[in-house]
Amino acid sequence: MSFSSNLLESAVHEFSKLPGIGKKTALRLALHLLRQPESDVSSFGETITRLRKEMRFCKKCHNISDAEYCLICTQPSRKKYLICVVESIRDVIAIESTQQYNGLYHVLGGVISPLDGIGPDQLQIESLIERVRTDNAEELIFALSPNIQGDTTLFYISKKVKDLPVVITTISRGISFGGELEYADELTLARSIQNRQPADQYVGLKGS
Amino acid sequence: MSFSSNLLESAVHEFSKLPGIGKKTALRLALHLLRQPESDVSSFGETITRLRKEMRFCKKCHNISDAEYCLICTQPSRKKYLICVVESIRDVIAIESTQQYNGLYHVLGGVISPLDGIGPDQLQIESLIERVRTDNAEELIFALSPNIQGDTTLFYISKKVKDLPVVITTISRGISFGGELEYADELTLARSIQNRQPADQYVGLKGS
Repeated sequence: MSFSSNLLESAVHEFSKLPGIGKKTALRLALHLLRQPESDVSSFGETITRLRKEMRFCKKCHNISDAEYCLICTQPSRKKYLICVVESIRDVIAIESTQQYNGLYHVLGGVISPLDGIGPDQLQIESLIERVRTDNAEELIFALSPNIQGDTTLFYISKKVKDLPVVITTISRGISFGGELEYADELTLARSIQNRQPADQYVGLKGS
Repeated sequence: MSFSSNLLESAVHEFSKLPGIGKKTALRLALHLLRQPESDVSSFGETITRLRKEMRFCKKCHNISDAEYCLICTQPSRKKYLICVVESIRDVIAIESTQQYNGLYHVLGGVISPLDGIGPDQLQIESLIERVRTDNAEELIFALSPNIQGDTTLFYISKKVKDLPVVITTISRGISFGGELEYADELTLARSIQNRQPADQYVGLKGS
């Protein structure tokens, strides 16, 4: 692409460095900004710069935070004895958007993966065990990826905390809502038969 | 979505104001920036702010420019007697990326469209006629949208310059390369039969 303005060219270049944004979309975004009020565009630019400059990680759960402790850890209504263990910040946001969980989190920063050179020491596992011990956590809910790395991590941490009075659970696995049975992989299908649940909650026979 | 950081939340909010970017993509972009070096992210933020603050329009062709005259108008190798008339900055970039045109441009800023309340006075038509007169343009190449508004604009400008020694042409219309004949609309097909071209240039009988 050839431009009549170096400024526009560098803005398009910057936008096209973002994941999933090609040259044409980058141009569309840059031209869109040109049509916005100057104050809006400055605030966009400043927000981005500040995001990177001022962002910290919560000392307790290692989630993204503005201060020493994040907004979730400092919320008084949260159940402090429940800790949901996740791989990344993205998982926290996914679980939060369900609005069904009212405990705290612990962001490991990945899962144990020897092939990628990621061992337990590179993850926030030591701090999790420390937290379980000092904060008197009653339950660790594991919400890790359903693969070998996730299972290894679960197994490793379970062993580490086995002498502490904490219950270990994982989120349930099975066929997704709206998923087609015939397209499910064999492992998922096999496990969802093994872990079958009472149907009462679906047919409304219980709890009424 | 619920966030552990207000900064992240406002960055996601800012990104999701861009066209075609939803909440999930906005989050992906914001998290991507967090993984980049701080200097890269600051330069992105600054580029955006500067783009809007310092952007001007070329006094001659009304294209986006960093200075009084744009990079295209000031390029010495350009043929000054050729002016390609387009609707928007985007069209200039599209034509420039073909690398087949070596004249100047004139950005009208739209087309005459009475239904949208856009008359000749809102467009850069007067300045185009002035340019033809003072710069001794020899040819005006119209590259407007192939619709009634585009044709009306072409007709209006043609009438205005009919006493000046300037040739008026339009880019050729027809079936796109790779286009299927059976899916072409009737008007395009009819016009492409009326405006049939000598086949020599395709079969290589001429010019060799």
